[in-house]
Amino acid sequence: MAANTFGEVFRVTTFGESHGSGIGLIIDGCPPGLELDLAFIQKELDRRKPGQSKIVTQRKEDESFTIQSGVFEGKTTGTPIGIFIPNIDQKSKDYSHIADIFRPSHADYTYQAKYGLRDYAGGGRSSARETAARVASGSIAKMILKKLGVIINAFVSQVGHVKLDESETLNLTLTEENIVRCPHPQTAQKMIDLIMDVKKSGDTIGGMVSCIIEGCPVGLGAPVFDKLHADLGKAMLSINAVKGFEYGSGFRSITMLGSEHNDIFINQNGNIKTKTNFSGGIQGGISNGMPINFNVAFKPVATIVQGQDTVNTQGKGAVAEGKGRHDPCVVPRAVPIVEAMAALVLVDHYLRNKSVKF
Amino acid sequence: MAANTFGEVFRVTTFGESHGSGIGLIIDGCPPGLELDLAFIQKELDRRKPGQSKIVTQRKEDESFTIQSGVFEGKTTGTPIGIFIPNIDQKSKDYSHIADIFRPSHADYTYQAKYGLRDYAGGGRSSARETAARVASGSIAKMILKKLGVIINAFVSQVGHVKLDESETLNLTLTEENIVRCPHPQTAQKMIDLIMDVKKSGDTIGGMVSCIIEGCPVGLGAPVFDKLHADLGKAMLSINAVKGFEYGSGFRSITMLGSEHNDIFINQNGNIKTKTNFSGGIQGGISNGMPINFNVAFKPVATIVQGQDTVNTQGKGAVAEGKGRHDPCVVPRAVPIVEAMAALVLVDHYLRNKSVKF
Amino acid sequence: MAANTFGEVFRVTTFGESHGSGIGLIIDGCPPGLELDLAFIQKELDRRKPGQSKIVTQRKEDESFTIQSGVFEGKTTGTPIGIFIPNIDQKSKDYSHIADIFRPSHADYTYQAKYGLRDYAGGGRSSARETAARVASGSIAKMILKKLGVIINAFVSQVGHVKLDESETLNLTLTEENIVRCPHPQTAQKMIDLIMDVKKSGDTIGGMVSCIIEGCPVGLGAPVFDKLHADLGKAMLSINAVKGFEYGSGFRSITMLGSEHNDIFINQNGNIKTKTNFSGGIQGGISNGMPINFNVAFKPVATIVQGQDTVNTQGKGAVAEGKGRHDPCVVPRAVPIVEAMAALVLVDHYLRNKSVKF
Amino acid sequence: MAANTFGEVFRVTTFGESHGSGIGLIIDGCPPGLELDLAFIQKELDRRKPGQSKIVTQRKEDESFTIQSGVFEGKTTGTPIGIFIPNIDQKSKDYSHIADIFRPSHADYTYQAKYGLRDYAGGGRSSARETAARVASGSIAKMILKKLGVIINAFVSQVGHVKLDESETLNLTLTEENIVRCPHPQTAQKMIDLIMDVKKSGDTIGGMVSCIIEGCPVGLGAPVFDKLHADLGKAMLSINAVKGFEYGSGFRSITMLGSEHNDIFINQNGNIKTKTNFSGGIQGGISNGMPINFNVAFKPVATIVQGQDTVNTQGKGAVAEGKGRHDPCVVPRAVPIVEAMAALVLVDHYLRNKSVKF
Repeated sequence: MAANTFGEVFRVTTFGESHGSGIGLIIDGCPPGLELDLAFIQKELDRRKPGQSKIVTQRKEDESFTIQSGVFEGKTTGTPIGIFIPNIDQKSKDYSHIADIFRPSHADYTYQAKYGLRDYAGGGRSSARETAARVASGSIAKMILKKLGVIINAFVSQVGHVKLDESETLNLTLTEENIVRCPHPQTAQKMIDLIMDVKKSGDTIGGMVSCIIEGCPVGLGAPVFDKLHADLGKAMLSINAVKGFEYGSGFRSITMLGSEHNDIFINQNGNIKTKTNFSGGIQGGISNGMPINFNVAFKPVATIVQGQDTVNTQGKGAVAEGKGRHDPCVVPRAVPIVEAMAALVLVDHYLRNKSVKF
Repeated sequence: MAANTFGEVFRVTTFGESHGSGIGLIIDGCPPGLELDLAFIQKELDRRKPGQSKIVTQRKEDESFTIQSGVFEGKTTGTPIGIFIPNIDQKSKDYSHIADIFRPSHADYTYQAKYGLRDYAGGGRSSARETAARVASGSIAKMILKKLGVIINAFVSQVGHVKLDESETLNLTLTEENIVRCPHPQTAQKMIDLIMDVKKSGDTIGGMVSCIIEGCPVGLGAPVFDKLHADLGKAMLSINAVKGFEYGSGFRSITMLGSEHNDIFINQNGNIKTKTNFSGGIQGGISNGMPINFNVAFKPVATIVQGQDTVNTQGKGAVAEGKGRHDPCVVPRAVPIVEAMAALVLVDHYLRNKSVKF
Repeated sequence: MAANTFGEVFRVTTFGESHGSGIGLIIDGCPPGLELDLAFIQKELDRRKPGQSKIVTQRKEDESFTIQSGVFEGKTTGTPIGIFIPNIDQKSKDYSHIADIFRPSHADYTYQAKYGLRDYAGGGRSSARETAARVASGSIAKMILKKLGVIINAFVSQVGHVKLDESETLNLTLTEENIVRCPHPQTAQKMIDLIMDVKKSGDTIGGMVSCIIEGCPVGLGAPVFDKLHADLGKAMLSINAVKGFEYGSGFRSITMLGSEHNDIFINQNGNIKTKTNFSGGIQGGISNGMPINFNVAFKPVATIVQGQDTVNTQGKGAVAEGKGRHDPCVVPRAVPIVEAMAALVLVDHYLRNKSVKF
Repeated sequence: MAANTFGEVFRVTTFGESHGSGIGLIIDGCPPGLELDLAFIQKELDRRKPGQSKIVTQRKEDESFTIQSGVFEGKTTGTPIGIFIPNIDQKSKDYSHIADIFRPSHADYTYQAKYGLRDYAGGGRSSARETAARVASGSIAKMILKKLGVIINAFVSQVGHVKLDESETLNLTLTEENIVRCPHPQTAQKMIDLIMDVKKSGDTIGGMVSCIIEGCPVGLGAPVFDKLHADLGKAMLSINAVKGFEYGSGFRSITMLGSEHNDIFINQNGNIKTKTNFSGGIQGGISNGMPINFNVAFKPVATIVQGQDTVNTQGKGAVAEGKGRHDPCVVPRAVPIVEAMAALVLVDHYLRNKSVKF
């Protein structure tokens, strides 16, 4: 019943709204003795930050953070790590014009119906700002994974109809070289152009983030409900605006034959590997040592410039006014969020796996 | 850390292997006073049963069950409901030929690596027989949902390249009229023909199950990690052979504009509804009263007739022998499993939602 | 919300009623590769069994069990271990005379009030028979502890006013030598005499079980809510008829000064030990390597021979009829239950502690 | 595995150390629409505050708090409530003299052994300051209980050998009238005198807190592991310095006969009550509507003025220096903590109980 907690052993609880005093998180279950790299946390937060380029929202959000607990002389102590990211200058704005309105495809109506009231300022808990807490948590998970040799690389693979050619060999070190975070420069440019066009028209567009995880140890995951890909799927689907998840062969597997889909085992210098990787690095819910790969579909952001018909809290017709500063496409900023959630799942299953041995 | 438990309030724990004494489950958290319809449980189990038609495995599995606890004078008591489905005549078979072999795209290798030993008879815990426990649990969840007016209909929407035409209006009462469980008779026939062809060639093929949930109350789900679609996604991805999940507009949303994707709110006779339903009945992670719909991609079954190269537990080259009795396509029997898992998620969130009010 | 589950990593879920088909349990989280000693499980069950001596209930309960899952070729596989203990010949008896009556100090009234109905046959889920499932689970936990060198010894330290002299040195190997399970033969005889007297008068009497755990590794437990003694306390208080729990100096500490209560650290051949052990082996919620000791108070059994005034389900005056076959004192049979619950807590914290290191 | 989280539905997670930036907590699962009484939170915090009288520690701790999330226009929103209590002027002090020393009967040694390092400043996470977070959480739980008519009154019933006479009728409104929080003025004065004596001698002494809960609805709790008194017991045993817990007849029940201990049911103006209340308001683990009462034993505080022999982190002999500002007896300040933990248990079970009905 811990709706705001993620993970079983490495447990992250997030709290805060975009227009309250700030966003925060507690990590309970981080092993002691980890040297915290504060600059890395900041770097990850900055990858998610609004205002970082012309193709994302021009909103200003302050992303400086404080460590509130769980760290002593620079190292984790095994007790809860608290991180707080204060909101700056958010309270001045007037939100009374949307207090009464259900914006289309936002969470306004469902929150009101579920809770009987809602924090309408900036969307309250449904605000994308909540993902800052995920990125901060994920950055600590990444520090642990780094020690294990696990590397997570997410990137933008599609914006609207502009799509990364799957036959190309990807150089993932290029992802951060452009503002859309697509590792193929030419495709990246087309994506940027498309997003700028969409932005000019006051509209938004969907996109896809792909993720490749190298170096995952064999044996993470569990046989039945907590299959590794099931937990990755839940993690991704819990990110705002996500509509779909597939791993390995994904939806393409529907049209494949077993004889072409099965991954033949081979002995590669004493390590058991597979010739192909339609399994996406996971078999029977447990990692098999091959790269884990998955795709995440993001819908177009609901906030658009043009006014839209809707109803108000009294069920009467109303118009949801447009808004200027929004993300025309969410995927460039979603890349670090996808990585962060993947890191949380992997560290949690890594620690869970420790109790499998006496 | 409860890898074999699903749900927070309506908690299902499953146990058992396909070649042990049987498969079982415990439901902890079922409200008291529910009149148990034993015939309905049996009916649901029979929909999942092997041997039910020419397009599924001809294996014989007995699906008769016993209620072991939690029911008094025909009604649930609020204490744990135990159900056991004994295995019949499974122990005689000789599995020693696969004790040493890692079958391609099965869980053999990952189980061995994780646990240091494995129950190789019939796949042990990775056997599809585990889903019988899910269907039995789900049938009880459906009894609760029936009282609430919630109806869950899953059906086969694709087998290989044979696909339900999305522009057709579906008559879901036709789903159970044919052995492939596709509500469009002509398409169903094409699917059956394709599966029979695949079967003759000793191969297997993937498919898709779609699901539509009508009558879901507004307000189920939670804002952040336990979004209703995230829990549905995890539920589906935890089913054997599933490779992808999408809800509402799903992967199609990638190419859509916000202005076309947003679902405009309308007042329909005093009820707030949306004109379109790209949201798939869920906004901000919480049900909005519109139909919930999602698609689940299933890969081709890994067991095929032809022998396949592989390695054995010593890392040496070996051949995984083919096997005659397997499902050429998993989706016809997956329909009741998808429904069962959806029912578990909805009942759990329905009960969770009760603590939102004083 | 898993009211019938105990533990976080080594998770035991129990189910079943005394007059249904049987009592069962699932252990999820037992490490793989443990050789199961079935004779030991039976031996532990027999220590709890009714009818074992003249001072316990003369009821007959069959305690033969079957392993339903999780074991392959004699070893645990890491998947859920299911154990079932069928009830024999329990259904014949007529319980209709108590269907309508709330027996004093039983769970009849509170179950009826909470659930709106109750399984009145033999007390349903409130029956002491549920503890058979605890003892079976605990016997597996003990097998793990044995490998770690941890030994748990519970014994009867008081029956009514007959009390073990605390100044005596105890020889715990004598506990099982007498039917009351008190390691001091003379005191044991006095306890037996007292229980026989109470039995003759158709009454019941309270008692105390003490427990000493040797060999517990340093470092089990957690700083705040999951202190080792807090989890031991919950475990003991969850046993039927328990009214109190104390560890180390317990209630005596109320009258002590800090200067006498503090346990001075010493270096004993390179191991850090304490001179005294008022801490009861636990400091700051974490085991310190000294023996863990605690006391558990049991009330007199509510079932007595004489009729008692009460009310019925309509709130009208009624008489609860007496019953011949009951335990005159619960503590002799409680000894293995206390040990079992202690074993579950220790194994769970042992496995939890594994995730504290990278 | 959530060692720093308490509760299943009304979930409190605490974080922070006494010498870091502050102490905080998140409540996940508080129903929406609760008007937060900030003055009441402060009042409760002040009851726990150091320096409030001559018989408690003269340390200064600032107890002003900020609400960080989950509240909108004065009301809870159903999202996580974050509260932070900053530490003021704590960092200046030099703790290096104890960095290397294991203080007797403190958590120094066990933390070091478990985690391999420890925050030695002020005890880190083992500091009693952590209880401020419990009191703040409990004050919100009390606001909910107030709406339900549940009243929790804890008080000091014993200090050393000075004991409340059980035969006296208590007037619980007098508890807060004196600094030791004993509702009987004459006994209170004796307790105060004793504590002052102990303080003068640089020593500490144990004590007992008793608690009476009136107005608890019938039906809270669960039959097996999560018995209401088992959860109350765990809650109390998780408080620093607690060594024992008993409810209802408690340890006295050991010497009682069933015929005197059984609580006879009576019909009191249409409500089912019991003549006596040895059950302490709980039968079969579920509240029966009678007052719930329990006792909690606290050991003498480990910090004393005189120096004590001990060992250091190298296992060598050392002296733990005494300290001037400590609580000579913990119970006066423990009263609000006991109430807070009881409130958390009751609210959690109240909300859990909601899912028992359809």
